[in-house]
Amino acid sequence: MECKVTIREATEEDLDIIVGMLANDPLGSQRERYEKPLPESYFKAFRAIESDLNNELIVASIDETVIGVLQITFTPYITHQGGWRATIEGVRTSASVRGQGIGSKMIRFAIDRAKERGCHLVQLTTDKKRPDSIRFYEQLGFTATHEGFKLKL
Amino acid sequence: MECKVTIREATEEDLDIIVGMLANDPLGSQRERYEKPLPESYFKAFRAIESDLNNELIVASIDETVIGVLQITFTPYITHQGGWRATIEGVRTSASVRGQGIGSKMIRFAIDRAKERGCHLVQLTTDKKRPDSIRFYEQLGFTATHEGFKLKL
Repeated sequence: MECKVTIREATEEDLDIIVGMLANDPLGSQRERYEKPLPESYFKAFRAIESDLNNELIVASIDETVIGVLQITFTPYITHQGGWRATIEGVRTSASVRGQGIGSKMIRFAIDRAKERGCHLVQLTTDKKRPDSIRFYEQLGFTATHEGFKLKL
Repeated sequence: MECKVTIREATEEDLDIIVGMLANDPLGSQRERYEKPLPESYFKAFRAIESDLNNELIVASIDETVIGVLQITFTPYITHQGGWRATIEGVRTSASVRGQGIGSKMIRFAIDRAKERGCHLVQLTTDKKRPDSIRFYEQLGFTATHEGFKLKL
């Protein structure tokens, strides 16, 4: 039986589990502060993202349990004939669901959002240069460049 | 005698010369459309940038002649403890003033803006991997990474 995955914008109530996921890898454990109570800086960033029409924090959930997160930013650039670009960042899934395609579902959702917003390019920043990351993003249509992964729409 | 360089936000009247600079290199000539009248997409992008508090199009001028351009975007991210990041993009100087330090002045201005906005990182996208670009950005404090140039503040 396949579980029903819901993908939606994050709410402030999701913040604790989001930061928990971000902190739960070797890189994240160094740069995040997953404490109780959560540092105020996360709430400030959440509100800044929420009030910015060009910035979306997206979560995936199964049975109302959040199991994945990513952030999409839409930016109007003067280059490329004044083209809009989408940037995906902070992609994480809960350790409990890895390998179940949740990451792909979230990325596809983000690509669809980028198309709806009329972007000509999706770019993806990742600190991971592992072969499995490269394979993962290449399967979704991205090309690895010296500036990260890119997908032309 | 050193010329006085002014660095300021672009106005719509600067757009023609800005697009001219963006189009005037091998890469830009392929991806821009420098035509008279200028394609409407540039005006739309200019207005989107102008109305976005997190996005600034900056020009350098000498005696009111625009001779350089760059774009800075400020983005609140949930990662890095909810840190703001500045992205510099579309850096160009007029061919007539190359080698006169205009690019450095503009980048320093952008770094100062990033500090004023409380960013923890400045990142720079560039399609140029030439040794002189790398030297240029390294002299300004950036580190070349597999995702472009980065400067921690």
